Amino acid sequence: MNVRYILKSRPSGRFSPETFERVQDDLPPLADGQARVKVAYVSLDPAMRGWVSPDTKSYLPPVAIGDTMRSLGIGIVEDSRTDAYSTGDWVTGFTGWTERLDVAPGQLTVVPPTVSMEDYMGVFGLAGATAYHGLVKVGEPKAGETLCVTGAAGSVGSLVGQIGKALGLRVIGIAGTPEKCRWLVDDLGFDAALNYRTDDLDAGLAAFAPDGIDLHFENVGGKPFAAALRHMKAHGRMVMCGFISVYNGDRPDEYPDMTAIIRRRLSLKGFVMTDHFDTYPAIFAELGKLIAAGKLTYRLDVVDGLDQAPVAINKLFEGTNTGKLVVKVVDA
Amino acid sequence: MNVRYILKSRPSGRFSPETFERVQDDLPPLADGQARVKVAYVSLDPAMRGWVSPDTKSYLPPVAIGDTMRSLGIGIVEDSRTDAYSTGDWVTGFTGWTERLDVAPGQLTVVPPTVSMEDYMGVFGLAGATAYHGLVKVGEPKAGETLCVTGAAGSVGSLVGQIGKALGLRVIGIAGTPEKCRWLVDDLGFDAALNYRTDDLDAGLAAFAPDGIDLHFENVGGKPFAAALRHMKAHGRMVMCGFISVYNGDRPDEYPDMTAIIRRRLSLKGFVMTDHFDTYPAIFAELGKLIAAGKLTYRLDVVDGLDQAPVAINKLFEGTNTGKLVVKVVDA
Repeated sequence: MNVRYILKSRPSGRFSPETFERVQDDLPPLADGQARVKVAYVSLDPAMRGWVSPDTKSYLPPVAIGDTMRSLGIGIVEDSRTDAYSTGDWVTGFTGWTERLDVAPGQLTVVPPTVSMEDYMGVFGLAGATAYHGLVKVGEPKAGETLCVTGAAGSVGSLVGQIGKALGLRVIGIAGTPEKCRWLVDDLGFDAALNYRTDDLDAGLAAFAPDGIDLHFENVGGKPFAAALRHMKAHGRMVMCGFISVYNGDRPDEYPDMTAIIRRRLSLKGFVMTDHFDTYPAIFAELGKLIAAGKLTYRLDVVDGLDQAPVAINKLFEGTNTGKLVVKVVDA
Repeated sequence: MNVRYILKSRPSGRFSPETFERVQDDLPPLADGQARVKVAYVSLDPAMRGWVSPDTKSYLPPVAIGDTMRSLGIGIVEDSRTDAYSTGDWVTGFTGWTERLDVAPGQLTVVPPTVSMEDYMGVFGLAGATAYHGLVKVGEPKAGETLCVTGAAGSVGSLVGQIGKALGLRVIGIAGTPEKCRWLVDDLGFDAALNYRTDDLDAGLAAFAPDGIDLHFENVGGKPFAAALRHMKAHGRMVMCGFISVYNGDRPDEYPDMTAIIRRRLSLKGFVMTDHFDTYPAIFAELGKLIAAGKLTYRLDVVDGLDQAPVAINKLFEGTNTGKLVVKVVDA
């Protein structure tokens, strides 16, 4: 018997108990040309809120009602009837919220078991690829520049700041609790951290970036984004990665003064990492060097069991997760 | 006796009678190394609202209280005590709201009297330079693409659309009256025009740009900008030239859903033309070819006399000007 969660209805705001339905059914006998995967971990990501919205013009088609909920994950091949996968292979990609799934060649990517599955979820997965590609390829940082990152204690933001430090940038993080801010400065080496709930962001940014922000990495939207816009240097660049504060359809807590884009001659670039799966191996090689040099730290927030996923995913939108949020599905 | 208008106080919303003060005084005898210019026309531009705001981080320092109001203009050298200018030269640049001014070498640019002063104000000035540079250099248009321009009947927007047509683009204009929309389609050759006050912009954009907008040129902000964002094609580009709807400090009539920047992987680039004075000669040569080929039409809205300027400038923010708004200062 396999357990999985399907999309039962589209949420109007946050994910609710009515959004998903637990389904328990038998997998059919493994077909020729396929492999059976036991899922070890699935990743809970802010982007998943967009995947269940009905916007057919988005970068991925919406998850259909009745389909297994889409998610990234990592697992082990239990049985194979294709040369593309061997029993014991570690495989990653869109596993979905399921304990087991049968896959065709090319559907998941085989990864070498040179690091732990936890490392794959924390760094060598969507979070690490997004942080590296967004900062380095989209943002084109130069040593000595001042980088500001929002959602700085999140899975992507915390890596962005650390990669920025490794590249010789001054890094300011904006996060949502004193504990997160301390972690950024004391453990991750950020130059400064501001708490957007309690600090005066204008005073803080004026103090830590008196000449303005050269490069900004946006994960949140709303108030921290509006503040960053006010402190951009002329000709500054803004990497637009996430707007988690409004993914549930909430109105932003503050609207930005977009005339700054013109007055300061800014460039803003949006990107989504599912466009760039082909670049992951090269990115992970670079991240591996940083890990080996002791320059990347991450935290995993592990939720135990697929049955916790439908509730735990809202931690992302409440800001209550501490580190990359993942679900441990089946013991690997 | 010379008449000029100085900035008396900073407006909180629109320009008001208290914003400016009429000053009548004698010019000193012309100093050695300077030339005296009689101002024929000054240009009224949306950017002037920003120039009187106290934002010291903007692309130009604010006009100081008590200084002659800053504006672009064109005039004729009446007397010269420098080799840089000869009596009878046509000169353009920041003349300000004054009948006459004394200038040093380099302060204004000598232009050949090969076209009329009206052509300089309508096409071969800030409007033409902004339209050409913004569309061609910032937007990098490709023949066959779909271009959307807001403020389409304005001095910049009307040229953007016509240059776009000359480059082989499909062009949709968004303007604010039925008369303006008719002018865009019937006289300027736009493929379609939408009235943002009365038309359903989503239905119109879906009809005229069913595959989405490749390239957008923003002059207005608010509702038309929000609509364009909803209809951008994946990887589309947005040239951010103006946000006239909020220059007076009004709140936008609609806030854009900025998550589209991420979902559609858009790039937005702000620019201001006062950064690029060195490119004007090359741009005007290109515009001259389009004029000669009969591919550029413009309208001037001429206000007679400097005394009308303080009130007439608000036509820009009311959308009641018909064509490039200029003030005829002294008969040339």
